[in-house]
This record gives sequence, structure tokens and C-alpha cells, in this order.
Amino acid sequence: MIPRAKQAGIALRVVAAVDRSGFVFEQRGLSRRRLEDFVAGKEAGRKIAGMPGGRAAGVAEAIAEIARHALSRPILVDVTAEDTAAVLRQWLASGHDLVLANKKPLAGPLEQARGLLDLARSRGRRILHETTVGAGLPIIDTLYKLVESNDRILRIVGCTSGTLGFLLGEIQKGRPFSGALQEAMKLGYTEPDPREDLSGMDVARKALILGRLVGFEGELDRIEVESLVPEALRGVTREEFLRRTGEMDRALEERSREAQAGGGFLRYVASITRRQVKVGLQAVPASSPFASLKGTDNQVAFTTVRYRRNPLVITGPGAGPDVTAAGVLNDILSLAGSA
Amino acid sequence: MIPRAKQAGIALRVVAAVDRSGFVFEQRGLSRRRLEDFVAGKEAGRKIAGMPGGRAAGVAEAIAEIARHALSRPILVDVTAEDTAAVLRQWLASGHDLVLANKKPLAGPLEQARGLLDLARSRGRRILHETTVGAGLPIIDTLYKLVESNDRILRIVGCTSGTLGFLLGEIQKGRPFSGALQEAMKLGYTEPDPREDLSGMDVARKALILGRLVGFEGELDRIEVESLVPEALRGVTREEFLRRTGEMDRALEERSREAQAGGGFLRYVASITRRQVKVGLQAVPASSPFASLKGTDNQVAFTTVRYRRNPLVITGPGAGPDVTAAGVLNDILSLAGSA
Repeated sequence: MIPRAKQAGIALRVVAAVDRSGFVFEQRGLSRRRLEDFVAGKEAGRKIAGMPGGRAAGVAEAIAEIARHALSRPILVDVTAEDTAAVLRQWLASGHDLVLANKKPLAGPLEQARGLLDLARSRGRRILHETTVGAGLPIIDTLYKLVESNDRILRIVGCTSGTLGFLLGEIQKGRPFSGALQEAMKLGYTEPDPREDLSGMDVARKALILGRLVGFEGELDRIEVESLVPEALRGVTREEFLRRTGEMDRALEERSREAQAGGGFLRYVASITRRQVKVGLQAVPASSPFASLKGTDNQVAFTTVRYRRNPLVITGPGAGPDVTAAGVLNDILSLAGSA
Repeated sequence: MIPRAKQAGIALRVVAAVDRSGFVFEQRGLSRRRLEDFVAGKEAGRKIAGMPGGRAAGVAEAIAEIARHALSRPILVDVTAEDTAAVLRQWLASGHDLVLANKKPLAGPLEQARGLLDLARSRGRRILHETTVGAGLPIIDTLYKLVESNDRILRIVGCTSGTLGFLLGEIQKGRPFSGALQEAMKLGYTEPDPREDLSGMDVARKALILGRLVGFEGELDRIEVESLVPEALRGVTREEFLRRTGEMDRALEERSREAQAGGGFLRYVASITRRQVKVGLQAVPASSPFASLKGTDNQVAFTTVRYRRNPLVITGPGAGPDVTAAGVLNDILSLAGSA
């Protein structure tokens, strides 16, 4: 049978691509071929201003140029990892809805994030950001649905780092942390400096986004974050850190063994209420949905007034370019399908 | 912070209520007080035609009467459990979008279900039906999102009967089936004649709805359904059946013990592909997400081209008036928020 009728009739065009160097714009839409060329160029480290049809411009100028053209329901997709809040305000002001894969604007200063949402509301624009937590998994959308149907979120508990999930899973199987980390790096699961994953800050940013959606009014530094990186290895170079990861083996092995001795499993958990957001290691009982989490899977459990005894739980791969792209596309379709 | 801006500004009015006896209509919207009176009246077995402001009419006449009024984006919500396909065509033809909590129209004859969706498409109308599977859990919406982002669904596996989940969970704990059934009836988990749950037909209907959304072109009778009710107890009266449930204890106990001896758990599972839909008892391995299913929780796992190694899994309470009402409201908001 058919998908939901509404989305079926939507024609999407990619009319522009923008980076720090400049932009390219084609009102009729960039051809697939040209898009592929741009992607290949970016992957090779080239700048848009220097590609065929590309024009050198600051972002503000690019926005002004693009906004001069009559576009039907324009949507700006932010797939950077930068602090783009100021630029996003300009896109909103020029009539664009926003889709964010970028966590920074919503996990930055509260006033900034709130200002963005207030501006969107006052302009009748929308901001969707499904992929800021769990990539393509329907986590943010589910949270919105719960809120929109007047449920009250009591607690959100989540394992939202595939990297940390993988590492703790391997440690649980008896493997030393340093060996598991080496494999995770080989598989491309980690940031170039794996301390970015191990510090818990990526999980903290996701937790802050979820927290703010349920009324937590704090800043990133009000989140309790347990870093897995010992004090002594925080200030050293990446190379020295990688040489000395063996120093972390014993402590993590012990934590994992303790959890298992108590009948549970060690997980890196984000725990979110209106009043408090914290992220760190926790021994979850064997009866918890988090006990059965596998590999790099993410999992988020919503405990609400309606889902009180048993939570609503979403589980699955929460990272990767293809599922992230799908989540971005779903957000775009959702915006395009609404007035 | 704020929910998605779009839905925030929507004003919903309940302008009509319709049953077989007649209808009530109030263009400015029925007051909360009147709505509560209607609900209380229906619960007491009264008919709308006989309530204050109610008018006697056949459904076709009621639709014609209601459609005479200028309504902004009217939505018809079907919360019956009847075969309403013919009536739903009239609602569509009179300009209504549809929200179905009722499984029958989509799980009836394929031509009928397809005709409904084709009519909706040709009229630019939409049909949403989140609560036909798993009540308020975002199962149908997730399936649509996967399809809309051009993922390909390879397999859907689900435990979508809270009643059967509860019974098998109790049997797993060593309790006899007949005792567990008694408690389930006391807790209101079963249909008045529990054979309706035990026959697997409710699960089969949900499986058929999911199957049709991924391209299964068969009818309900093409689904392999394993009934838990032995041949000898199918034709007897409800009273006789309830007296003789003890006859089912041993077989179910043995099946559960076998599953556990093999390191697994006995679940009542719907298994869905484009080519085949079947529902019945299965021993799921301890490593399966279904192994950790608790109480009356539902669980649906989507294996797709993008979610291939590990599925996308949704788990939680999949029945009950409050979560069903919330799911219906989310569908209404989704329709109201789109052009």
C-alpha cells in the first residue's frame, strides 16, 4: 500500500550549498551530478568558493544573496559541528525553516538556544533536530509527541554514545579497555582524539538538549559529567595518551566486575529530569532494558505520567552517515509537508 | 524550552459525535461539560440520538448534515471496532482526513483497504492510524519514516499482544496457564471471551496492517496463525471454556520449558516480510531484544537495509485508554499541523 499521502507529492530541490568560503546557488536545483562533485570536493578538502559555479562570500552575504530569490518554503540544513547560533538566526530571519544535525546551537548557552526557538516561533518558522540525539532513531520526535499530547516527562534515561557502549560491552566480555579502544579506533567509532568520547562531553551535550526540552534550565557546566579519562591523562598530547591507555585498564575492569558481581552491567548513562542532568558510569540491573544493549546501539527510555510503570523505550544504531542522513531527510519531509 | 512551534498554535474543536443511532453537532465546538456527559452516557449504554441535542439519523445522513457546514480542516476519528470502510469512504469524500484507532478497515479485504487509501490520495486527504498497532507507541509513524526516507524494510518482528505477553511471562515464572489467565481477566487485560486473545487473531490483524504497509498483498486468511486454543475448546461456550482452561496448562508449560532449556524464552511473535506474514509461538534466544520483554509490554523490531545488523526497536506499554487517546491526539495534531 502507499506511504502517507501528503509526503508522497513533495518535490525537494537542493538549491544551494554554503560553507565558510562562499556558496553555490541554482534556483532550479543543483543536479545530482553537481551535488556529487561538491561532496567529492569537500571530502578532498576543497572549498565551495573554488568549485565550479562557487562564489566567494561571507555567510551573511550568502544568506542575503540566496534570500533575494523567491523560494517556496526554503529549509536550511545545518550539518556543521560549529557554534552556528548567530548564523542560524539570520537564516530564520530570511524565512528559512531549520533542520539541525548540529548539536552545538541547542547545547550552547541557554539564552542563545532559547533565543533561537523564540525567534523561530515569532516568525512562524520551525526548527527540527531529530539527529542531534541518536541519529535517525525517532527520539526527539517521540519526546515532542509526548509533550504535545500533554503527557508529563518524569525522567529520561539514555545510553547515547555508541562508542562508550561498544567499549563497555567489550570490557564486560573480559577484554582490556586499551585493546577495545584500539579496535574502536580501527572501526572508525571514535573521534580522532578518543578522549572527546571518553570525556563524556558528547553525551552531556545530547543530555542537555533532551533536558532543555523537558524544562531543565541549566547550562552545560551545570551537568555532572563523569569523565573516563583520569586526571593524569587529560593534559597530555594525543600521542602520549594513546601510548598510556593501558593505565586505564584496571580501574575500568574493576568497575565492570563490581557491576557484574552485583548482578548488573556497567553502562555510561545519561539521566535527565527537569531539575537535574547527569552523565556517567552506572551499574544497571539485569532487569533494566539497558542490560541487553548491544554493540554500538543507543537506547533512550522515557518515563512519563502515562508510561510510568514501564517506560517507552527506543533502541538501535544511533550513529553513522546513512541513518543520520535519513533522519535529516525525515525532518525535511516533515517541514515540507506542513504549511 | 518550547515544543515544535507549529503544533503550538493549533486550536482543536470537537464539533460532532456520531454513533449508529444518530449524531450531535455544534459548529462552535462541544463544551468539555457536554463531551463528558456524552462519554458518561455512552458508558451507561445510551445512544447519542437520545441525549441532549442528539438527532436520530443514519450515518450517511449524519455525514451529509455535518458536511453542509463550513469546517476548517475537518478530521474524522474512528474509535469503533466495526467494519467501517464504506462509511469512511463517505467521510473522505466529504472532505475529512481520517484518524483510525479501528483496525478493521485496514485489516479487512485488501481491495477495500487499498480503495480507502487510493480515495484518500485522489482527494488529497490523509489517513493516520498510529494506534492500530501498539496504541501510543510510535510504531506506524516510524515505519512511515523509514519508507519515506527510502529505506527498505526487510523484516518486522513484533510482540504486539500485551495479554499474550503477560500470560507467557507468568508461565515462564512457573505459574500454570489457567491461573495466569484468571489474573489477566481480573486485571482487565483480556477480551470478555479470552479466546479472542488466545486465538492470535488480534495479533494477526496488527501484523496484516504492518505487512500491507511493506507490500504484503495478501488477505487475513493468508496469514499463518497459531491459535493457543486447542481444537476441543474452540466450539464450546465461554463458560465451558473458562471451566476447562486447566486442560491447556501442560502443553503451554512444556513449550515454555523447552524454550528455556534451549536458553531462550517463549514469546507470541508476529513475523512480517513483503512475502509472508505469520504469527505464533516462538522460542526467542536470550540475546534477542524480545527476551527482555516484560509484563504487558509490546515490542516491534524493524530490520531494514540501513538498520540491518541491529534493528530499530520500539518497546513499551501498547494498550490502555490513556496511551491510545494520546496516540490519536498526536495523529490529529499531525494532520492539523499540515496543509
